[in-house]
Amino acid sequence: MKTIEVCLTPDLIHQHDLSGKIVVVVDIFRATSCIVTGLANGLEAIRPVAEIAECKALGKSGYLMAGERGGQKVEGFDMGNSPFEYLEEGVKGKKVAISTTNGSQAILKSEGADAIIIGSFLNLEALTAYLLQLPLGVVVHCAGWKGTPNLEDTLFAGALIDECAEEMEPLGDSALLAHQLFVANHENLLGLALQSSHAERLKSFGIEEDLEFCLEESKYQVVPKLIDGELVA
Amino acid sequence: MKTIEVCLTPDLIHQHDLSGKIVVVVDIFRATSCIVTGLANGLEAIRPVAEIAECKALGKSGYLMAGERGGQKVEGFDMGNSPFEYLEEGVKGKKVAISTTNGSQAILKSEGADAIIIGSFLNLEALTAYLLQLPLGVVVHCAGWKGTPNLEDTLFAGALIDECAEEMEPLGDSALLAHQLFVANHENLLGLALQSSHAERLKSFGIEEDLEFCLEESKYQVVPKLIDGELVA
Repeated sequence: MKTIEVCLTPDLIHQHDLSGKIVVVVDIFRATSCIVTGLANGLEAIRPVAEIAECKALGKSGYLMAGERGGQKVEGFDMGNSPFEYLEEGVKGKKVAISTTNGSQAILKSEGADAIIIGSFLNLEALTAYLLQLPLGVVVHCAGWKGTPNLEDTLFAGALIDECAEEMEPLGDSALLAHQLFVANHENLLGLALQSSHAERLKSFGIEEDLEFCLEESKYQVVPKLIDGELVA
Repeated sequence: MKTIEVCLTPDLIHQHDLSGKIVVVVDIFRATSCIVTGLANGLEAIRPVAEIAECKALGKSGYLMAGERGGQKVEGFDMGNSPFEYLEEGVKGKKVAISTTNGSQAILKSEGADAIIIGSFLNLEALTAYLLQLPLGVVVHCAGWKGTPNLEDTLFAGALIDECAEEMEPLGDSALLAHQLFVANHENLLGLALQSSHAERLKSFGIEEDLEFCLEESKYQVVPKLIDGELVA
């Protein structure tokens, strides 16, 4: 049986052997929810980068610049980290360079895996179908918050384990923990996720609409994949 | 209100500011359960050390040598990592030097805290009473398994948060996660803890009795404290 592991934060990714595995990067509030939304809405590609300066350099080559630090849009950038910005007509056909506090870093730290794809509640169904037809074991790489685990990414990892349960075995206690958290709270995902420290921080910026959007399940069918450094549909 | 944080593994301890805090080190299967048992049973002191070689050096100064690697007793040592060894008559009044895969390392990596004490289900009630009367914030430092989180230590962290709930506020998502796990499973702690990867490994050595012993609640009143490098009652 294939296995599914959970890495609760990028600061623990060294504990996972990524070779021969597919990594699902998850940053529910909000980077991977934005990426799924954007690619489902006609963006051509999204290039995750570590530093704001790299975004600016790519901006000069025609990329839209997207970025957030500590939950707020970087000054002078075209976009922040709200999924609604990725739904605007103007982004269709464009490429975006994105740097966020947690999500971009988790994508970049997944190097070494056979494949890197993007997960969120918004594409849960399509993601599950995609994983089930591949022969690879799965590592769910939660972006967390500045190196610490967070509730919403862990909840999502648990939801994905639950979806894959008939064909994949949870490997390691972080996977058991995430699944337990999901099973105990599956009727109140929104309520629990909104209790998270990160949600509290984001609510102080008045973006509850973003949070509710990010928790909608299987709204899009896209499964973003990292190819030559860019995420594409 | 005082705060209570949870560090799910020593590999994440750099995320916590320990100054001005009291750290509760937890390694349910089995180091901190052994330490509590031994000090409740008349051991004079227990010195946690990182390396087997340090145990051997202390052995020459009259310490009993205790140690385990990968769940099994180190060859030539007086004791392994079973709480029943700490109940024997011969240990009373003695000092022990101990090196274990996870527990000793977590104690040593708690340096920088105002105080370091030892927690386990065996001393939950006494530990709670001790923490409630101090003015310090608490960091529960779970030893985990070779740097990854584990179920049993996380469950214990959740149980301690629950006990302290009226006077301490959980800080950060790892604390919320641990508390959720406990609340959802408080009627089946044994069942859940025995599902953990570590319990599975230990069961293969035929030590289910050890595991059940380690999950008994508030059997002892001792709260081990680290003073000058040694744990004392």
